[in-house]
Amino acid sequence: MNNKTIKFSRKSAPEQTARMVETIVGCKWSLTVYNLLKHDIRRPGEMVKSVEGLTTKVLNACLKRNIEFGIVERESFNEIPPRVEYRVTELGDKFIHILTELEKLQAEIDDSSL
Amino acid sequence: MNNKTIKFSRKSAPEQTARMVETIVGCKWSLTVYNLLKHDIRRPGEMVKSVEGLTTKVLNACLKRNIEFGIVERESFNEIPPRVEYRVTELGDKFIHILTELEKLQAEIDDSSL
Repeated sequence: MNNKTIKFSRKSAPEQTARMVETIVGCKWSLTVYNLLKHDIRRPGEMVKSVEGLTTKVLNACLKRNIEFGIVERESFNEIPPRVEYRVTELGDKFIHILTELEKLQAEIDDSSL
Repeated sequence: MNNKTIKFSRKSAPEQTARMVETIVGCKWSLTVYNLLKHDIRRPGEMVKSVEGLTTKVLNACLKRNIEFGIVERESFNEIPPRVEYRVTELGDKFIHILTELEKLQAEIDDSSL
């Protein structure tokens, strides 16, 4: 028997980033939007046209949430007609990388339960 | 104007692993338990003794949830008195790695908002 005197304190969880995972996964279209941005489809109109079932209303709600979390940013160009584009931020890149890791793990779980 | 005809379909999210993040972060003691296991503190009694504020009841609930997700496994040794130990599975290792990435990102967000 060893008489350890080390005391561990409670390790708190990364609540905000966990909430990001929760919200973004709940958002349903976010991963699709990241995919569009990756393929350089950055304008809302073009995004809606490119995805079956995606409406402007849902897209805007999805973009708004991603902007709030700092994953995506909006850029407006002073042109006629005005142009608005969205892009993934540096933070967003890291976050999406983590989501990809979660996807890989998901795939492993799915495979092993076949 | 380019006339892209590519259509993107909805990319579904890794729901189970996202639920893992959500549940484990909600669990509050899970990260502490992983920390104990990393330090080779594997027996429930020893775990409770090592952490201020951790009760057997809460620990058991936490272990149960982690076992359900396949993150932790229980091993019982046929000894007198009987010995039970917990360990992180291979899947659990990968999952904890992802949580660590979320923590790092969390730290970056916290730093940048100072």
